[in-house]
Amino acid sequence: MKNFLKISILATSMICSINFAQAQKPAIIEDFKPSELNQPQQEYPMVNSQGYARFKIIAPTADSVRVSLGLGGRGGTKLAKAEDGSWMGTTEGPMDEGFHYYNVRIDGGKFNDPGTLNYYGSVRWESGIEIPAKDQDFYALKNVPHGNVQQILFPSPSTNTSRRAFIYTPPGYEKGKYKYPVLYLQHGWGEDETAWMNQGRANLIMDNLIAAGKIKPFIIVNTYGMTNEVKFGKIREFKIEPFQTVLVDELIPYVDANFRTIAKKEMRAMAGLSMGGMETKTITLNKPDVFGYYGLLSGGIYASTDFKDKPQPKLIFISCGSKERPDGVKKAGEELKAAGFNAVSYVSEGTAHEFQTWRRSLYQMAPLLFR
Amino acid sequence: MKNFLKISILATSMICSINFAQAQKPAIIEDFKPSELNQPQQEYPMVNSQGYARFKIIAPTADSVRVSLGLGGRGGTKLAKAEDGSWMGTTEGPMDEGFHYYNVRIDGGKFNDPGTLNYYGSVRWESGIEIPAKDQDFYALKNVPHGNVQQILFPSPSTNTSRRAFIYTPPGYEKGKYKYPVLYLQHGWGEDETAWMNQGRANLIMDNLIAAGKIKPFIIVNTYGMTNEVKFGKIREFKIEPFQTVLVDELIPYVDANFRTIAKKEMRAMAGLSMGGMETKTITLNKPDVFGYYGLLSGGIYASTDFKDKPQPKLIFISCGSKERPDGVKKAGEELKAAGFNAVSYVSEGTAHEFQTWRRSLYQMAPLLFR
Repeated sequence: MKNFLKISILATSMICSINFAQAQKPAIIEDFKPSELNQPQQEYPMVNSQGYARFKIIAPTADSVRVSLGLGGRGGTKLAKAEDGSWMGTTEGPMDEGFHYYNVRIDGGKFNDPGTLNYYGSVRWESGIEIPAKDQDFYALKNVPHGNVQQILFPSPSTNTSRRAFIYTPPGYEKGKYKYPVLYLQHGWGEDETAWMNQGRANLIMDNLIAAGKIKPFIIVNTYGMTNEVKFGKIREFKIEPFQTVLVDELIPYVDANFRTIAKKEMRAMAGLSMGGMETKTITLNKPDVFGYYGLLSGGIYASTDFKDKPQPKLIFISCGSKERPDGVKKAGEELKAAGFNAVSYVSEGTAHEFQTWRRSLYQMAPLLFR
Repeated sequence: MKNFLKISILATSMICSINFAQAQKPAIIEDFKPSELNQPQQEYPMVNSQGYARFKIIAPTADSVRVSLGLGGRGGTKLAKAEDGSWMGTTEGPMDEGFHYYNVRIDGGKFNDPGTLNYYGSVRWESGIEIPAKDQDFYALKNVPHGNVQQILFPSPSTNTSRRAFIYTPPGYEKGKYKYPVLYLQHGWGEDETAWMNQGRANLIMDNLIAAGKIKPFIIVNTYGMTNEVKFGKIREFKIEPFQTVLVDELIPYVDANFRTIAKKEMRAMAGLSMGGMETKTITLNKPDVFGYYGLLSGGIYASTDFKDKPQPKLIFISCGSKERPDGVKKAGEELKAAGFNAVSYVSEGTAHEFQTWRRSLYQMAPLLFR
């Protein structure tokens, strides 16, 4: 009885929302295909050419199933019981292009969609879905020479453990003799050192830029920024020192000792997304002799006054999505340029505080580094 | 009403099983700690010093929650609703030492435990739990020099794509000049190229063996054996040729061209677990000029008659868990030795067709390679 009532209410609300949607939006085109981030042999979730996502979750005796993704706001997409006993639903509108984290609420618990691969965000491994973007070519896996991504375990006396980092080395690194510049590239709050290569596709972005002759090859290093040791609401209480020690006193010397790097400030960059941008700003200003190039990706801005009594960096790169606060980014870029800095601002069109903004930002920033 | 009935039945069956257990087993010691494979900040699942596992799943309005792990058989562990609305349960008895895959059935659907990291097995990313083993030291993360694990994307004309492999290079590889032997090491059915480094801890086993001076350093290569293109019940229909082409004609030449390997049969080994053992046996016998050392880990046996008109390998290593069919493995080892082969058989005590058997097998086999 309880179930019957719920289904009736759901059916009614679905009819309302369909009417509402039809009044405003074109019809959904039924060209759905499996998301490219699905686990092997999994059909769902699917995405269509308009950017709608369709989900299917098997949980025959569940009372309610809801996907955290959907059009605007916190509600997400309620799934409805289909004839075969599965739960199905389509987002109310098209999603932004690119990568999205999500999870599935089943009877009040938070789980992952068994159909998809998992990506670390929100301090948990979340489900991932990819809405094909018009510019997806720049991070596609193509038939070009590929660099490698390697996991290193570096000694960290300050935290009394071996810590993990991922290192992208450009194509030809293994058998070559060249030394390379290094970009230290940080993830955001809730994420970890896996983010940039997994959901960010930093390695493929680099492979494609190098193959196109658009950049000089460099190494990328990702490590955990210890950002998740504070709760999201208390980020202002985050203390930079422990991570700064790991990065500057432990990781950089290890990388310079074990990889063919050009171990000097003019050939070393730091950038980060979101809270990784906060870290970048603080550490680059605390340690002006370590890095020569600075990047904040949806992670705040520099003002010319930040550099009082400090050397000018070779480059300041600031970016965000057009659905964030692009005016602040543009204004900061202009202010820095007017003050004589080599500053570049970039706004990713049609994207929010998500990885498509950061993939594009890396693509824009990489050719400007180590010039 | 429905829920109430279910809970009553569950409570009754729990009392029965507790009585049954108490008659046979010592009391459960309440020294449960979070499993070392839990996601950051997650308390559950927990394990105790006897090898019991305790689970906690939050799904307040679910009708039934069951974990696929448990004592013997297919039933797994039914969880019961706790006072706080979560579902909790403890395995009926101690689990075998080492790594186990599992999943959670919630209202008829198969999900992962949000508390744990995921590992690829059964053609899906599964939950993982680690029952601390008495001999866990040999695969522990210790303060010793660490080799790196790198992801490569190698061109595969035969499958018209770039394929992924993981490569372990020993400590000191990056800045050194030595050339190394290579072990090509395959996963089992349902798994992929991530298995040996993630759940197998092959990199840590190597780091520790090298630090203890017990082996000469070598490179390990893991790639996807294409094993999951057939259903589990139809493994006999598996055709080896596509994978053999990828391995022998594409991956090995790429590794030899891009890494400092000793590119000859006497310095190249192949081994595999379970279905990866089947692949190893077939490919080593099909291509006797490619590999010098052969290993089957819970993956069948060789007989001396397999080598009619073929050169003898430098070593045949055969292993399994004592809970598998150890007599067959021992007998095959004896038969091969009697026929003049350098054969070694190994049985892992107290383990079944699981990764603890294969971690120990790698630990036993590695010192015998490339001698």
